Amino acid sequence: MEHSAASAPATLPYYVAFSQLLGLTVVAVTGAWLGLYRGGIAWEGSLQFNVHPLCMVIGMIFLQGDALLVYRVFRKEAKRTTKALHGLLHAVAFIIALVGLVAVFDYHKKKGYADLYSLHSWCGILVFALYFVQWLVGFGFFLFPGASFSLRGRFRPQHIFLGATIFLLSVGTALLGLKEALLFKLGTKYSTFEPEGVLANVLGLLLICFGVVVLYILAQADWKRPSQAEEQALSMDFKTLTEGDSPSPQ
Amino acid sequence: MEHSAASAPATLPYYVAFSQLLGLTVVAVTGAWLGLYRGGIAWEGSLQFNVHPLCMVIGMIFLQGDALLVYRVFRKEAKRTTKALHGLLHAVAFIIALVGLVAVFDYHKKKGYADLYSLHSWCGILVFALYFVQWLVGFGFFLFPGASFSLRGRFRPQHIFLGATIFLLSVGTALLGLKEALLFKLGTKYSTFEPEGVLANVLGLLLICFGVVVLYILAQADWKRPSQAEEQALSMDFKTLTEGDSPSPQ
Repeated sequence: MEHSAASAPATLPYYVAFSQLLGLTVVAVTGAWLGLYRGGIAWEGSLQFNVHPLCMVIGMIFLQGDALLVYRVFRKEAKRTTKALHGLLHAVAFIIALVGLVAVFDYHKKKGYADLYSLHSWCGILVFALYFVQWLVGFGFFLFPGASFSLRGRFRPQHIFLGATIFLLSVGTALLGLKEALLFKLGTKYSTFEPEGVLANVLGLLLICFGVVVLYILAQADWKRPSQAEEQALSMDFKTLTEGDSPSPQ
Repeated sequence: MEHSAASAPATLPYYVAFSQLLGLTVVAVTGAWLGLYRGGIAWEGSLQFNVHPLCMVIGMIFLQGDALLVYRVFRKEAKRTTKALHGLLHAVAFIIALVGLVAVFDYHKKKGYADLYSLHSWCGILVFALYFVQWLVGFGFFLFPGASFSLRGRFRPQHIFLGATIFLLSVGTALLGLKEALLFKLGTKYSTFEPEGVLANVLGLLLICFGVVVLYILAQADWKRPSQAEEQALSMDFKTLTEGDSPSPQ
Protein backbone atom coordinates (compact mmCIF):
# COMPACT_ATOMS: atom_id res chain seq x y z
CA MET A 1 0.00 0.00 0.00
CA GLU A 2 2.69 2.50 0.94
CA HIS A 3 5.03 3.91 -1.66
CA SER A 4 8.19 5.92 -1.29
CA ALA A 5 7.53 9.66 -1.05
CA ALA A 6 10.23 10.28 -3.66
CA SER A 7 8.47 8.28 -6.41
CA ALA A 8 6.07 10.29 -8.56
CA PRO A 9 2.44 9.44 -7.68
CA ALA A 10 0.87 7.74 -10.68
CA THR A 11 -2.42 9.68 -10.79
CA LEU A 12 -1.10 13.18 -9.92
CA PRO A 13 -0.38 14.18 -13.58
CA TYR A 14 -3.98 13.38 -14.57
CA TYR A 15 -5.39 15.52 -11.77
CA VAL A 16 -3.01 18.38 -12.67
CA ALA A 17 -3.97 18.10 -16.36
CA PHE A 18 -7.67 18.12 -15.39
CA SER A 19 -7.14 21.21 -13.21
CA GLN A 20 -5.46 23.03 -16.12
CA LEU A 21 -8.26 22.04 -18.50
CA LEU A 22 -10.81 23.36 -15.99
CA GLY A 23 -8.82 26.58 -15.34
CA LEU A 24 -8.46 27.37 -19.04
CA THR A 25 -12.15 26.58 -19.59
CA VAL A 26 -13.06 29.01 -16.78
CA VAL A 27 -11.01 31.78 -18.46
CA ALA A 28 -12.47 30.94 -21.91
CA VAL A 29 -16.09 30.87 -20.66
CA THR A 30 -15.55 34.20 -18.84
CA GLY A 31 -14.28 35.66 -22.13
CA ALA A 32 -17.21 34.13 -24.04
CA TRP A 33 -19.73 35.54 -21.52
CA LEU A 34 -18.23 39.05 -21.78
CA GLY A 35 -17.96 38.83 -25.57
CA LEU A 36 -21.40 37.35 -26.29
CA TYR A 37 -23.55 39.18 -23.73
CA ARG A 38 -21.60 42.21 -22.52
CA GLY A 39 -20.18 43.75 -25.70
CA GLY A 40 -16.55 42.73 -25.23
CA ILE A 41 -13.67 44.55 -23.56
CA ALA A 42 -12.15 48.04 -23.80
CA TRP A 43 -10.46 50.47 -21.39
CA GLU A 44 -12.81 53.33 -22.40
CA GLY A 45 -16.57 53.73 -21.98
CA SER A 46 -18.94 51.23 -20.41
CA LEU A 47 -16.88 48.27 -21.65
CA GLN A 48 -14.18 49.20 -19.11
CA PHE A 49 -16.17 47.36 -16.45
CA ASN A 50 -15.64 44.08 -18.35
CA VAL A 51 -11.87 44.31 -17.76
CA HIS A 52 -12.64 43.65 -14.09
CA PRO A 53 -14.13 40.11 -14.22
CA LEU A 54 -11.66 38.93 -16.88
CA CYS A 55 -8.56 40.15 -14.99
CA MET A 56 -9.81 38.86 -11.63
CA VAL A 57 -10.55 35.39 -13.07
CA ILE A 58 -7.13 35.19 -14.79
CA GLY A 59 -5.22 36.57 -11.78
CA MET A 60 -7.05 35.64 -8.59
CA ILE A 61 -8.45 32.29 -9.80
CA PHE A 62 -6.39 30.66 -12.57
CA LEU A 63 -2.86 31.96 -11.84
CA GLN A 64 -3.30 31.94 -8.06
CA GLY A 65 -4.50 28.32 -8.24
CA ASP A 66 -1.55 27.37 -10.45
CA ALA A 67 0.90 29.09 -8.07
CA LEU A 68 -0.41 26.81 -5.29
CA LEU A 69 0.14 23.73 -7.47
CA VAL A 70 3.81 24.55 -8.26
CA TYR A 71 5.15 22.46 -5.35
CA ARG A 72 3.13 19.43 -6.52
CA VAL A 73 3.99 19.76 -10.23
CA PHE A 74 7.74 20.43 -9.85
CA ARG A 75 8.38 17.82 -7.18
CA LYS A 76 11.93 16.99 -8.33
CA GLU A 77 13.30 20.49 -9.03
CA ALA A 78 15.56 22.33 -6.57
CA LYS A 79 13.50 23.91 -3.78
CA ARG A 80 14.85 27.40 -4.53
CA THR A 81 13.73 27.27 -8.18
CA THR A 82 10.25 26.01 -7.21
CA LYS A 83 9.95 28.71 -4.54
CA ALA A 84 10.96 31.45 -7.00
CA LEU A 85 8.35 30.21 -9.51
CA HIS A 86 5.70 30.12 -6.74
CA GLY A 87 6.51 33.74 -5.77
CA LEU A 88 6.69 34.88 -9.40
CA LEU A 89 3.34 33.36 -10.39
CA HIS A 90 1.70 35.01 -7.37
CA ALA A 91 3.31 38.36 -8.32
CA VAL A 92 1.98 38.12 -11.90
CA ALA A 93 -1.45 37.12 -10.55
CA PHE A 94 -1.37 40.10 -8.19
CA ILE A 95 -0.49 42.61 -10.95
CA ILE A 96 -3.21 41.30 -13.29
CA ALA A 97 -5.75 41.48 -10.44
CA LEU A 98 -4.59 45.03 -9.66
CA VAL A 99 -5.38 46.05 -13.26
CA GLY A 100 -8.84 44.48 -12.78
CA LEU A 101 -9.36 46.49 -9.58
CA VAL A 102 -8.21 49.78 -11.14
CA ALA A 103 -10.63 49.12 -14.03
CA VAL A 104 -13.69 48.80 -11.80
CA PHE A 105 -12.84 51.75 -9.51
CA ASP A 106 -12.09 53.95 -12.56
CA TYR A 107 -15.35 52.83 -14.21
CA HIS A 108 -17.36 53.59 -11.03
CA LYS A 109 -15.72 57.03 -10.75
CA LYS A 110 -16.50 57.97 -14.37
CA LYS A 111 -20.11 56.80 -14.00
CA GLY A 112 -20.56 58.33 -10.53
CA TYR A 113 -21.43 54.95 -8.96
CA ALA A 114 -20.84 54.24 -5.26
CA ASP A 115 -17.88 52.05 -4.28
CA LEU A 116 -17.57 49.24 -1.75
CA TYR A 117 -21.19 48.84 -0.70
CA SER A 118 -21.78 45.20 -1.65
CA LEU A 119 -20.77 41.92 0.00
CA HIS A 120 -18.80 41.11 -3.17
CA SER A 121 -16.76 44.31 -2.84
CA TRP A 122 -16.18 43.84 0.91
CA CYS A 123 -14.97 40.27 0.35
CA GLY A 124 -12.92 41.35 -2.66
CA ILE A 125 -11.02 44.11 -0.82
CA LEU A 126 -10.46 41.81 2.17
CA VAL A 127 -9.13 38.97 -0.01
CA PHE A 128 -6.93 41.29 -2.09
CA ALA A 129 -5.41 42.90 1.05
CA LEU A 130 -4.79 39.44 2.59
CA TYR A 131 -3.21 38.29 -0.70
CA PHE A 132 -0.83 41.28 -0.69
CA VAL A 133 0.16 40.79 2.97
CA GLN A 134 0.61 37.04 2.44
CA TRP A 135 2.90 37.70 -0.54
CA LEU A 136 5.01 40.26 1.37
CA VAL A 137 5.31 38.09 4.49
CA GLY A 138 5.96 35.00 2.36
CA PHE A 139 8.71 36.81 0.48
CA GLY A 140 10.27 38.02 3.74
CA PHE A 141 10.22 34.58 5.36
CA PHE A 142 10.90 32.20 2.49
CA LEU A 143 12.70 33.98 -0.37
CA PHE A 144 14.66 36.75 1.36
CA PRO A 145 17.80 35.11 2.77
CA GLY A 146 17.44 36.50 6.33
CA ALA A 147 14.91 34.20 8.02
CA SER A 148 16.23 31.26 10.02
CA PHE A 149 15.47 27.65 9.22
CA SER A 150 13.40 27.16 12.40
CA LEU A 151 11.37 30.34 11.82
CA ARG A 152 10.51 29.12 8.31
CA GLY A 153 9.50 25.71 9.63
CA ARG A 154 7.22 27.23 12.24
CA PHE A 155 5.60 29.70 9.80
CA ARG A 156 5.15 27.21 6.92
CA PRO A 157 1.85 25.57 8.09
CA GLN A 158 0.26 29.01 8.70
CA HIS A 159 1.43 30.20 5.25
CA ILE A 160 -0.06 27.11 3.58
CA PHE A 161 -3.40 27.34 5.45
CA LEU A 162 -3.74 31.08 4.76
CA GLY A 163 -2.80 30.55 1.10
CA ALA A 164 -5.47 27.88 0.59
CA THR A 165 -8.02 30.03 2.45
CA ILE A 166 -7.27 33.11 0.29
CA PHE A 167 -7.66 30.97 -2.84
CA LEU A 168 -11.03 29.56 -1.69
CA LEU A 169 -12.22 33.05 -0.69
CA SER A 170 -11.21 34.28 -4.16
CA VAL A 171 -13.44 31.62 -5.74
CA GLY A 172 -16.31 32.59 -3.39
CA THR A 173 -15.85 36.31 -4.16
CA ALA A 174 -15.91 35.57 -7.91
CA LEU A 175 -19.21 33.71 -7.49
CA LEU A 176 -20.70 36.69 -5.60
CA GLY A 177 -19.52 39.07 -8.32
CA LEU A 178 -20.95 36.88 -11.08
CA LYS A 179 -24.31 36.72 -9.29
CA GLU A 180 -24.29 40.52 -8.81
CA ALA A 181 -23.54 41.17 -12.50
CA LEU A 182 -26.35 38.79 -13.50
CA LEU A 183 -29.02 40.15 -11.16
CA PHE A 184 -28.26 43.80 -11.94
CA LYS A 185 -28.71 43.17 -15.67
CA LEU A 186 -31.29 40.38 -15.90
CA GLY A 187 -33.40 41.11 -12.79
CA THR A 188 -36.55 38.94 -12.85
CA LYS A 189 -35.68 37.77 -16.40
CA TYR A 190 -33.09 35.54 -14.66
CA SER A 191 -35.98 33.21 -13.73
CA THR A 192 -36.94 32.63 -17.39
CA PHE A 193 -33.74 30.67 -18.08
CA GLU A 194 -32.25 33.39 -20.33
CA PRO A 195 -29.20 32.02 -22.21
CA GLU A 196 -26.89 34.50 -20.42
CA GLY A 197 -28.16 33.32 -17.01
CA VAL A 198 -27.63 29.65 -17.89
CA LEU A 199 -24.10 30.34 -19.25
CA ALA A 200 -23.19 32.32 -16.12
CA ASN A 201 -24.53 29.52 -13.88
CA VAL A 202 -22.35 27.04 -15.79
CA LEU A 203 -19.39 29.41 -15.32
CA GLY A 204 -20.14 29.44 -11.58
CA LEU A 205 -20.10 25.63 -11.43
CA LEU A 206 -16.82 25.54 -13.41
CA LEU A 207 -15.25 28.02 -10.93
CA ILE A 208 -16.32 25.74 -8.05
CA CYS A 209 -14.94 22.63 -9.83
CA PHE A 210 -11.55 24.35 -10.38
CA GLY A 211 -11.42 25.33 -6.69
CA VAL A 212 -12.30 21.80 -5.54
CA VAL A 213 -9.77 20.07 -7.84
CA VAL A 214 -6.92 22.42 -6.76
CA LEU A 215 -7.86 21.84 -3.10
CA TYR A 216 -7.96 18.06 -3.68
CA ILE A 217 -4.46 18.05 -5.19
CA LEU A 218 -3.15 20.15 -2.27
CA ALA A 219 -4.84 17.94 0.35
CA GLN A 220 -3.29 14.61 -0.70
CA ALA A 221 -0.51 13.89 1.80
CA ASP A 222 1.23 11.48 -0.63
CA TRP A 223 1.47 14.14 -3.32
CA LYS A 224 3.38 16.64 -1.18
CA ARG A 225 6.84 17.58 -2.40
CA PRO A 226 9.40 15.22 -0.82
CA SER A 227 12.40 16.86 0.91
CA GLN A 228 15.47 16.58 -1.30
CA ALA A 229 18.72 15.09 0.01
CA GLU A 230 20.40 18.48 0.60
CA GLU A 231 17.36 19.81 2.53
CA GLN A 232 17.32 16.68 4.72
CA ALA A 233 21.04 17.18 5.44
CA LEU A 234 20.41 20.82 6.41
CA SER A 235 17.50 19.79 8.59
CA MET A 236 19.67 17.19 10.37
CA ASP A 237 22.43 19.77 10.94
CA PHE A 238 19.85 22.10 12.43
CA LYS A 239 18.42 19.36 14.67
CA THR A 240 21.90 18.53 15.95
CA LEU A 241 22.59 22.20 16.69
CA THR A 242 19.38 22.76 18.63
CA GLU A 243 18.77 19.45 20.34
CA GLY A 244 22.30 18.09 20.81
CA ASP A 245 23.14 14.72 19.29
CA SER A 246 21.40 12.57 21.89
CA PRO A 247 18.17 10.96 20.74
CA SER A 248 14.95 12.69 21.80
CA PRO A 249 13.28 11.01 24.83
CA GLN A 250 10.08 10.39 22.85
CA MET B 1 8.55 21.32 20.14
CA GLU B 2 6.69 18.03 19.69
CA HIS B 3 4.08 16.93 22.17
CA SER B 4 2.39 13.60 22.63
CA ALA B 5 -0.66 13.17 20.39
CA ALA B 6 -2.64 11.92 23.40
CA SER B 7 -2.24 15.13 25.44
CA ALA B 8 -4.97 17.74 24.88
CA PRO B 9 -3.65 20.66 22.77
CA ALA B 10 -3.63 23.78 24.97
CA THR B 11 -5.23 26.21 22.48
CA LEU B 12 -7.85 23.89 20.92
CA PRO B 13 -10.60 24.70 23.52
CA TYR B 14 -10.25 28.43 22.77
CA TYR B 15 -10.62 27.88 19.03
CA VAL B 16 -13.64 25.59 19.61
CA ALA B 17 -15.23 28.18 21.95
CA PHE B 18 -14.60 30.90 19.34
CA SER B 19 -16.17 28.75 16.60
CA GLN B 20 -19.29 28.21 18.75
CA LEU B 21 -19.54 31.93 19.51
CA LEU B 22 -19.30 32.66 15.78
CA GLY B 23 -21.80 29.93 14.86
CA LEU B 24 -24.38 31.13 17.37
CA THR B 25 -23.84 34.74 16.25
CA VAL B 26 -24.47 33.68 12.64
CA VAL B 27 -27.79 32.05 13.65
CA ALA B 28 -28.76 35.07 15.81
CA VAL B 29 -27.90 37.63 13.08
CA THR B 30 -29.86 35.58 10.51
CA GLY B 31 -32.84 35.65 12.90
CA ALA B 32 -32.38 39.40 13.51
CA TRP B 33 -32.21 40.09 9.75
CA LEU B 34 -35.41 38.11 9.08
CA GLY B 35 -37.17 39.66 12.10
CA LEU B 36 -36.13 43.28 11.55
CA TYR B 37 -36.31 43.56 7.76
CA ARG B 38 -38.37 40.63 6.47
CA GLY B 39 -41.37 40.53 8.83
CA GLY B 40 -40.41 37.39 10.78
CA ILE B 41 -41.23 33.74 10.16
CA ALA B 42 -44.41 31.73 9.53
CA TRP B 43 -45.37 28.64 7.52
CA GLU B 44 -48.25 30.46 5.77
CA GLY B 45 -48.20 33.43 3.37
CA SER B 46 -45.15 35.32 2.16
CA LEU B 47 -43.33 34.79 5.47
CA GLN B 48 -42.96 31.10 4.55
CA PHE B 49 -39.94 32.01 2.43
CA ASN B 50 -38.11 33.16 5.58
CA VAL B 51 -38.16 29.62 6.97
CA HIS B 52 -35.68 28.75 4.21
CA PRO B 53 -32.65 30.92 5.16
CA LEU B 54 -33.08 30.26 8.90
CA CYS B 55 -33.31 26.46 8.53
CA MET B 56 -30.43 26.30 6.03
CA VAL B 57 -28.16 28.38 8.29
CA ILE B 58 -29.00 26.27 11.38
CA GLY B 59 -28.74 22.93 9.53
CA MET B 60 -26.23 23.27 6.70
CA ILE B 61 -23.91 25.80 8.39
CA PHE B 62 -24.00 25.65 12.20
CA LEU B 63 -24.90 21.99 12.86
CA GLN B 64 -22.95 20.64 9.89
CA GLY B 65 -19.86 22.59 11.08
CA ASP B 66 -20.30 21.26 14.61
CA ALA B 67 -20.67 17.70 13.35
CA LEU B 68 -17.23 18.06 11.67
CA LEU B 69 -15.71 19.29 14.95
CA VAL B 70 -16.97 16.32 17.02
CA TYR B 71 -13.75 14.31 16.53
CA ARG B 72 -11.66 17.27 17.74
CA VAL B 73 -13.86 18.15 20.74
CA PHE B 74 -14.40 14.58 22.07
CA ARG B 75 -10.83 13.41 21.64
CA LYS B 76 -10.84 11.07 24.66
CA GLU B 77 -14.26 9.42 24.27
CA ALA B 78 -14.69 5.95 22.80
CA LYS B 79 -14.56 6.06 18.99
CA ARG B 80 -17.99 4.44 18.64
CA THR B 81 -19.68 7.13 20.79
CA THR B 82 -17.97 9.95 18.88
CA LYS B 83 -18.91 8.38 15.55
CA ALA B 84 -22.56 8.00 16.62
CA LEU B 85 -22.67 11.67 17.68
CA HIS B 86 -21.08 12.71 14.34
CA GLY B 87 -23.71 10.75 12.40
CA LEU B 88 -26.56 11.98 14.62
CA LEU B 89 -25.63 15.68 14.33
CA HIS B 90 -25.44 15.33 10.54
CA ALA B 91 -28.85 13.60 10.52
CA VAL B 92 -30.42 16.44 12.57
CA ALA B 93 -28.74 19.01 10.29
CA PHE B 94 -30.11 17.18 7.24
CA ILE B 95 -33.71 17.08 8.58
CA ILE B 96 -33.67 20.82 9.49
CA ALA B 97 -32.26 21.66 6.05
CA LEU B 98 -34.96 19.48 4.44
CA VAL B 99 -37.64 21.57 6.21
CA GLY B 100 -35.91 24.69 4.80
CA LEU B 101 -35.97 23.22 1.31
CA VAL B 102 -39.64 22.19 1.52
CA ALA B 103 -40.46 25.74 2.69
CA VAL B 104 -38.92 27.43 -0.35
CA PHE B 105 -40.33 24.98 -2.92
CA ASP B 106 -43.79 25.23 -1.33
CA TYR B 107 -43.54 29.04 -1.28
CA HIS B 108 -42.50 29.16 -4.96
CA LYS B 109 -45.38 26.82 -5.89
CA LYS B 110 -47.99 28.92 -4.08
CA LYS B 111 -46.66 32.14 -5.66
CA GLY B 112 -46.20 30.59 -9.13
CA TYR B 113 -42.46 31.38 -9.17
CA ALA B 114 -39.98 29.35 -11.24
CA ASP B 115 -37.71 26.86 -9.46
CA LEU B 116 -34.03 26.08 -9.85
CA TYR B 117 -32.99 28.81 -12.28
CA SER B 118 -30.32 30.59 -10.22
CA LEU B 119 -26.71 29.72 -9.42
CA HIS B 120 -27.71 29.65 -5.73
CA SER B 121 -30.36 27.02 -6.39
CA TRP B 122 -28.08 24.92 -8.64
CA CYS B 123 -25.34 24.94 -5.98
CA GLY B 124 -27.88 24.31 -3.23
CA ILE B 125 -29.40 21.22 -4.86
CA LEU B 126 -25.94 19.87 -5.72
CA VAL B 127 -24.65 20.37 -2.16
CA PHE B 128 -27.79 18.89 -0.58
CA ALA B 129 -27.63 15.81 -2.83
CA LEU B 130 -23.91 15.35 -2.06
CA TYR B 131 -24.65 15.75 1.67
CA PHE B 132 -27.32 13.03 1.52
CA VAL B 133 -25.08 10.62 -0.43
CA GLN B 134 -22.14 11.34 1.89
CA TRP B 135 -24.32 10.55 4.92
CA LEU B 136 -25.63 7.31 3.45
CA VAL B 137 -22.20 6.12 2.30
CA GLY B 138 -20.64 7.24 5.62
CA PHE B 139 -23.29 5.30 7.55
CA GLY B 140 -22.72 2.21 5.41
CA PHE B 141 -18.93 2.30 5.77
CA PHE B 142 -18.36 3.57 9.30
CA LEU B 143 -21.43 2.90 11.49
CA PHE B 144 -23.01 -0.20 9.94
CA PRO B 145 -21.02 -3.16 11.25
CA GLY B 146 -20.39 -4.80 7.87
CA ALA B 147 -17.45 -2.86 6.40
CA SER B 148 -13.98 -4.25 6.93
CA PHE B 149 -11.22 -2.42 8.79
CA SER B 150 -9.11 -1.97 5.64
CA LEU B 151 -12.06 -0.69 3.59
CA ARG B 152 -12.78 1.95 6.27
CA GLY B 153 -9.12 3.01 6.34
CA ARG B 154 -9.01 3.41 2.58
CA PHE B 155 -12.30 5.34 2.39
CA ARG B 156 -11.62 7.63 5.42
CA PRO B 157 -9.46 10.30 3.63
CA GLN B 158 -12.05 10.61 0.81
CA HIS B 159 -14.89 10.89 3.37
CA ILE B 160 -13.01 13.66 5.24
CA PHE B 161 -12.13 15.61 2.08
CA LEU B 162 -15.67 15.37 0.70
CA GLY B 163 -17.11 16.35 4.09
CA ALA B 164 -14.96 19.49 4.32
CA THR B 165 -15.77 20.35 0.69
CA ILE B 166 -19.54 19.97 1.25
CA PHE B 167 -19.28 22.23 4.31
CA LEU B 168 -17.35 24.94 2.40
CA LEU B 169 -19.79 24.70 -0.52
CA SER B 170 -22.65 25.13 1.96
CA VAL B 171 -21.09 28.38 3.20
CA GLY B 172 -20.59 29.56 -0.42
CA THR B 173 -24.20 28.67 -1.31
CA ALA B 174 -25.47 30.59 1.73
CA LEU B 175 -23.52 33.68 0.58
CA LEU B 176 -25.07 33.41 -2.91
CA GLY B 177 -28.55 33.09 -1.40
CA LEU B 178 -28.00 36.08 0.88
CA LYS B 179 -26.82 38.19 -2.06
CA GLU B 180 -29.83 37.08 -4.14
CA ALA B 181 -32.31 37.96 -1.36
CA LEU B 182 -30.66 41.39 -0.97
CA LEU B 183 -30.52 42.31 -4.67
CA PHE B 184 -34.10 41.17 -5.38
CA LYS B 185 -35.44 43.40 -2.60
CA LEU B 186 -33.05 46.37 -2.48
CA GLY B 187 -32.00 46.62 -6.14
CA THR B 188 -30.05 49.83 -6.71
CA LYS B 189 -30.88 50.98 -3.14
CA TYR B 190 -28.19 48.46 -2.07
CA SER B 191 -25.59 51.05 -3.16
CA THR B 192 -26.91 53.68 -0.71
CA PHE B 193 -25.71 51.68 2.31
CA GLU B 194 -29.25 50.82 3.47
CA PRO B 195 -29.15 49.36 7.02
CA GLU B 196 -30.46 46.00 5.75
CA GLY B 197 -27.67 45.81 3.17
CA VAL B 198 -24.98 46.56 5.76
CA LEU B 199 -26.40 44.01 8.22
CA ALA B 200 -26.56 41.35 5.50
CA ASN B 201 -22.95 42.11 4.46
CA VAL B 202 -21.87 41.68 8.10
CA LEU B 203 -23.80 38.37 8.17
CA GLY B 204 -21.90 37.32 5.04
CA LEU B 205 -18.54 38.07 6.69
CA LEU B 206 -19.61 36.18 9.84
CA LEU B 207 -20.54 33.14 7.71
CA ILE B 208 -17.08 33.26 6.10
CA CYS B 209 -15.36 33.58 9.51
CA PHE B 210 -17.26 30.54 10.85
CA GLY B 211 -16.24 28.53 7.78
CA VAL B 212 -12.56 29.55 8.10
CA VAL B 213 -12.36 28.82 11.86
CA VAL B 214 -13.95 25.35 11.44
CA LEU B 215 -11.55 24.61 8.56
CA TYR B 216 -8.59 25.83 10.65
CA ILE B 217 -9.48 23.50 13.54
CA LEU B 218 -9.86 20.56 11.11
CA ALA B 219 -6.56 21.34 9.35
CA GLN B 220 -4.30 21.24 12.43
CA ALA B 221 -2.52 17.88 12.35
CA ASP B 222 -1.74 18.04 16.11
CA TRP B 223 -5.41 18.45 16.97
CA LYS B 224 -6.56 15.27 15.26
CA ARG B 225 -8.13 12.64 17.46
CA PRO B 226 -5.42 10.24 18.68
CA SER B 227 -6.08 6.49 18.22
CA GLN B 228 -7.09 4.93 21.52
CA ALA B 229 -5.30 1.90 22.92
CA GLU B 230 -8.02 -0.59 21.83
CA GLU B 231 -8.05 0.82 18.26
CA GLN B 232 -4.26 0.49 18.05
CA ALA B 233 -4.53 -3.11 19.23
CA LEU B 234 -7.19 -3.82 16.59
CA SER B 235 -5.04 -2.17 13.95
CA MET B 236 -2.05 -4.30 14.98
CA ASP B 237 -4.18 -7.48 14.85
CA PHE B 238 -5.30 -6.53 11.38
CA LYS B 239 -1.73 -5.79 10.25
CA THR B 240 -0.60 -9.19 11.56
CA LEU B 241 -3.47 -10.89 9.72
CA THR B 242 -2.80 -9.23 6.38
CA GLU B 243 0.97 -8.87 6.33
CA GLY B 244 2.12 -11.84 8.41
CA ASP B 245 4.17 -11.19 11.53
CA SER B 246 7.45 -10.41 9.81
CA PRO B 247 8.47 -6.74 9.88
CA SER B 248 7.70 -4.73 6.74
CA PRO B 249 10.80 -4.16 4.50
CA GLN B 250 10.39 -0.35 4.66
